[in-house]
Amino acid sequence: MKTLLEAIRPTVFLKPEKLNTYLNLDLTIATETFQHTGSFKFRAGYNTASKVAQEHLITASSGNFGQALAYACKILGKRCHVVMPETSAKVKIDSVRSYGAIVDLIDTAKVSREDRVLQLLDEFPDAYKASAYDDPLVIEGNSSLGDEISQFDFDTVIVPVGGGGLISGTSLALCRNGKNAALIGAEPEMANDAARSLRNGELVRNDSEPQTIADGARTLSLGKHNWEIIKDGVSEIVEVSEENIRKALQTLFGLANLKVEPTGALGLGAIFQKPEIFSGKTVCVIVSGGNVDAEVYRRILSS
Amino acid sequence: MKTLLEAIRPTVFLKPEKLNTYLNLDLTIATETFQHTGSFKFRAGYNTASKVAQEHLITASSGNFGQALAYACKILGKRCHVVMPETSAKVKIDSVRSYGAIVDLIDTAKVSREDRVLQLLDEFPDAYKASAYDDPLVIEGNSSLGDEISQFDFDTVIVPVGGGGLISGTSLALCRNGKNAALIGAEPEMANDAARSLRNGELVRNDSEPQTIADGARTLSLGKHNWEIIKDGVSEIVEVSEENIRKALQTLFGLANLKVEPTGALGLGAIFQKPEIFSGKTVCVIVSGGNVDAEVYRRILSS
Repeated sequence: MKTLLEAIRPTVFLKPEKLNTYLNLDLTIATETFQHTGSFKFRAGYNTASKVAQEHLITASSGNFGQALAYACKILGKRCHVVMPETSAKVKIDSVRSYGAIVDLIDTAKVSREDRVLQLLDEFPDAYKASAYDDPLVIEGNSSLGDEISQFDFDTVIVPVGGGGLISGTSLALCRNGKNAALIGAEPEMANDAARSLRNGELVRNDSEPQTIADGARTLSLGKHNWEIIKDGVSEIVEVSEENIRKALQTLFGLANLKVEPTGALGLGAIFQKPEIFSGKTVCVIVSGGNVDAEVYRRILSS
Repeated sequence: MKTLLEAIRPTVFLKPEKLNTYLNLDLTIATETFQHTGSFKFRAGYNTASKVAQEHLITASSGNFGQALAYACKILGKRCHVVMPETSAKVKIDSVRSYGAIVDLIDTAKVSREDRVLQLLDEFPDAYKASAYDDPLVIEGNSSLGDEISQFDFDTVIVPVGGGGLISGTSLALCRNGKNAALIGAEPEMANDAARSLRNGELVRNDSEPQTIADGARTLSLGKHNWEIIKDGVSEIVEVSEENIRKALQTLFGLANLKVEPTGALGLGAIFQKPEIFSGKTVCVIVSGGNVDAEVYRRILSS
């Protein structure tokens, strides 16, 4: 069985001149769009599936974690159930299936993803309930990206925030590598529970699943394990407008030759949203993933 | 002054599972979309601008070589004139200008690019006439990509063909590294002068500039220096239909998270065109560049 570091692909670091000239910044992109299954989530999925004793894993995921866990289970010869909302991007549903997992589509108006996972666990009591973010194994898996970033000295590292799995892993890694970079979260304004949590000093939940175009950040709240790390390790969470998410996706297309999904564009969106906090800094922005339907992408490109 | 190897970025090698599963092939992509100026042409531009004694370079280029030479001259503190057809992609014209070169736009129905370059050389007799492909310095620059590919053992290497600068450089490198890979060219069917040349055993020219969507391959013929290498070093040139170029661009978007320009999609297009010659082989396909207008890209994605 491959270790995590043997199984993952190193991230791809890019320094696009045109983008840096346009922003007047010293910006490095760490893109996970070419990671196995097209997003950083493979780091979490493989770490979880390879370290638990169970031979069957069940998860709820709006998409990228589902693909990641499905592919990790395929590699490891384990069984996998993925609960997904019917409204997930078609390309993500198809992918989870193509990796051999059983997709369980639900109407989130009728049953929550959480409740559906509990129903399945009743049916399969020997299975492991895999969380897309709220699990130390997930945080540990994602921290491998933070270790890669720690080979450089950045003033600031920007990380997209949904459930908080990536930013908590990045925080752990920067800390254990003795890095002083300011860690900034980038969250959709429409789904700003993490920003509110950091302001209030306690975990805050959204009332319902926010319908931001950044579908990887449509979470009700940060995970508990993530929050424990984020509350001390994150300097600020920038709330990014839908307009700036779209602008960031377009800009990565035009000035960096990079195809990203809307959630992956959050980090650059944060720079558009609050340029003053990045001015004069060396900045690393994580692009979390690249899986997006062609039709959605075309619509955003033309907007 | 940086050497060529210090100035260029290493190519990015990708092995997308979804694409390989779809094709049922062992395929590796070497993508130059993240090279300086967004295409392999920077290798040629930098090698030329750094090795000639002249402080002023003049070239004709449908775009990518113009950007590459402009940026190389900017780095090296040299002056640069780029002759371009008025019909070039707007993103390419803007880029050449942004790198500080003087863009000389022409109506190709009234004056050929070649004649316009000669007019400029009359005006600036101390300048060097830089060719986008027909120059040993260009071939040598591009051969650096072939050296990178030579660290692996592929059965087949597929290279887009316009003027023949990249495939002749790749041929040189594979040869000097003792590699036996079959070298296959990928050329638009609408601009099949190289394929006809290889069949006839002599250099054949198109009557007029072919209006293929692969705008980097709108050349009248291979260069003479390139032909001398290609006639012995290239196994076959696959003529790719416009439909397969579009399909390849869409597939690289959907199954490899890769944004490519139409010319960059020619290699995968060759696999769609003649799958039988790649079956059971380990294949490396070069994606030559990623610079394409958003509107053109959107149109191809939806077709």
